[in-house]
Order: sequence, then structure tokens, then C-alpha cells
Amino acid sequence: MRSHTVYETFNTERRREFVRITGDVQRAVDDSGVSEGLVLVSAMHITAGVWVNDDEPGILEDALEWLDKLAPPSWKEPANDVARELSPDPGDYRHHRGGEDNGDAHFKNLLVHHQVILPITDGRLDLGPWQQVFYAEFDGGRPKRLVIKVLGE
Amino acid sequence: MRSHTVYETFNTERRREFVRITGDVQRAVDDSGVSEGLVLVSAMHITAGVWVNDDEPGILEDALEWLDKLAPPSWKEPANDVARELSPDPGDYRHHRGGEDNGDAHFKNLLVHHQVILPITDGRLDLGPWQQVFYAEFDGGRPKRLVIKVLGE
Amino acid sequence: MRSHTVYETFNTERRREFVRITGDVQRAVDDSGVSEGLVLVSAMHITAGVWVNDDEPGILEDALEWLDKLAPPSWKEPANDVARELSPDPGDYRHHRGGEDNGDAHFKNLLVHHQVILPITDGRLDLGPWQQVFYAEFDGGRPKRLVIKVLGE
Repeated sequence: MRSHTVYETFNTERRREFVRITGDVQRAVDDSGVSEGLVLVSAMHITAGVWVNDDEPGILEDALEWLDKLAPPSWKEPANDVARELSPDPGDYRHHRGGEDNGDAHFKNLLVHHQVILPITDGRLDLGPWQQVFYAEFDGGRPKRLVIKVLGE
Repeated sequence: MRSHTVYETFNTERRREFVRITGDVQRAVDDSGVSEGLVLVSAMHITAGVWVNDDEPGILEDALEWLDKLAPPSWKEPANDVARELSPDPGDYRHHRGGEDNGDAHFKNLLVHHQVILPITDGRLDLGPWQQVFYAEFDGGRPKRLVIKVLGE
Repeated sequence: MRSHTVYETFNTERRREFVRITGDVQRAVDDSGVSEGLVLVSAMHITAGVWVNDDEPGILEDALEWLDKLAPPSWKEPANDVARELSPDPGDYRHHRGGEDNGDAHFKNLLVHHQVILPITDGRLDLGPWQQVFYAEFDGGRPKRLVIKVLGE
């Protein structure tokens, strides 16, 4: 059995950003020498996710609009009445009592999920034709880490 | 270490459909000869999910109603005001500018998640008494693939 | 390759409860003798989840409020109009026709996801500084099981 671990650090310019990392994950697989196995791609933070989706700008923009309604930031006006009612009832996230302002990012992380696991077949990520792997930053502008762990033979 | 990979193709009659696949996954485990390990079950499309839930018709119907409110299709009337406000603000998904009409399926895929990983113990899927594995199709009527990857010993 | 399987039973006092289990998972890793690998932590029920988040009381309380709006219980008044519209249209979950009252817990399980997979590096859970593992009970007050499966070398 072989295993190989790679850490990556992201420091996005914008607060929220989708960064395509399919190539990084394939590179970790290449370096591992694994031809049959699994690779875990997991954010090491609770305000960032990992997402497999289409690399199509429209859907990524749709996603951020939609996530801002379902998990509304309190550092900007709610997008509409639904976002307002999905905001916390005390007026702000209880989590912010300690000085944070990223409560929404915790819930976006919950919706998107913070990890994926990808199959490796014949040394290649065994993905469908439109599946790309994204690091989904919801509270960026500072260095944040991701772990890629390859396991197999 | 043993590994075994199976691809399945689904071509559902209806646009949305839950297909129970617990037996297919167990069969892949049987064919792998693995008695202790993990099996990944992952949709190879970004408009379909894999879900572990109860095989109870009521909950599956509830799920589709609920997912249609949270991630509203734009090819039919929004179910109610909440669905209307959770629809994209430009009137339609930006993703549809290229001629697609399945933006909602991308978000249902995000909510349901496109994969599960199941433990294998003594050669059996180590599931709870009500846990069944479903392929969750949100944009069917055409052939779509799923990968089952068994890893273990 | 080594594998090690541990089952845990939770019988929470309250109907909904977040139970921190990072220590339990590390203990399973210790007992497995695995220094490089993966560990799956998966609820064996369809009304409980496993969540990696911050062990900060505010965010956990925020989470329950928010999940009760998105996946509204029918055994108490909807929190507000959004929760009312996200409730099932027939007035109650179809799932309840068989005498159940936990339809909301199925959907909270879907949102939170019922499992995580954690990397093991040098014999330690390879988590970020604020990542804690929680068992998320949404329909407690009775014994429910969780499986921890370690795989590696």
C-alpha cells in the first residue's frame, strides 16, 4: 500500500472564490505512484469547501447568489426576504459574539461539504467529462490550508 | 490490497428519479473479493447524486418536493414564494445562457452530495437497518454513469 | 494493509444534540495501529449526521436554529414564514403516514451529511486547528449507532 500527502495553501484575493484544483489533485496522484486507489481532498478549515462541479462561469456565479440566500452573510444586506428570514433570529449569528463575522461561511461549508473523495483508476482521476474539482473559499483573504491524501497501490 | 471498479449506466425514464442500488454495490463488493475495506459510490455527473436513506416512498416524495423549493427548476413554475425568491435573480440561471435548462439539478446535486463511501466488514456493506443506497437522478432521460470503487483486503 | 472497526452507540437525552467525538475517532486510530491512512466516520441511521466544525457553542446553536428553518419539524410550530413554506405541502410529511414524526431529521441528515472521512498522518487525525468531529443527533432519546472504520498501514 502506498500513501502520499500534500498540503496546499490558498490565500485568495477576494473573500469568496472558487479555485479549480483538478490539476493539483492529479499531480499529487502522479507523485504518489498510485495507479488504483482513492484520493481524499479536504479543506482544513470550517469556512471553506471542496466541490466537484462544472467549470462554467454562469453556474459558479449562480451558486454564490444562491448560497448567499440560503446562508446569508451578516456583513451585507440580506439579498431578499427569504435571506432575511434565514438569517439568525437574534439579529446576528451567536458565533459573532466572539468578534467573528464569518457565520455564513460555516453554513456554506456545511451545504457544499468540506471534502470529496475521488477514485483513481490506471493512475488517473476517474472523473466524468464535466467534473472538475474546486476549492470553494467562503472567508478568504488569509492563508488557508487543504490536504490531499492519496491511498492505494 | 485489492481494488475493483464497476461502472453503471442509468437512463431513467423520468427527469427525476431515485433508483435503489444497494444490491449493485454489494455485488461489486462480492466480485472484488474484499472482506475489509471501503467502497466509494460516486456519480460521474454534476446533475445526479448518491444518497443513503430510507426506502420509504413517502420520504422520497417529500424529498423531491423539498428539493424543488430549495433548488427551484426554471422549467416549471416555482412551487411557492420561497421557491420564487430562491430562484436566480436575473430571472433564469446564468448557466442557461449556453442553452442548458438544468441549473436546479446542479444545486440539488450539491445538497444531496454526489457520493457516499460505505464500510465493508466481513465482506458485507456495513449499513444500519434502514440505510439503503440510492442513485438520485435530477436530469435524466439520457445515459449517465456512476462509478463504484472497492478498496481493501 | 490494516483495518479496524469500532461501533459506538449514542443515546442522547435531548432530541437534538451535537456530541463531540474527535477523541473517540483518534482512539480508534490508535487502536488500529495505522499511521498512514483514512478513517470513515459514518452514522448508521438516516436521522443523524457527522459534522466537522468549530466547537463553539454559538455556532452550534446557530446551526440548529438554521436547520429548523430549512428542514422544519412538524412536531412544533414553524419558526417563521420561510420555515412554513419549506414544510411539506400536504400539511405534514408523507413519511409520517406510517406513524413517524421525524421527517425533518431525514432532511437535516441530508444537509449535514451522514459521514466524513478523515486523513491519518503519522498516526494522528490530520485536521486543521479548529476542526472537531461531531455526531449530530436529530432524532435522539433512543440508542443509535455509528461506525468508525480505519484503513491504512
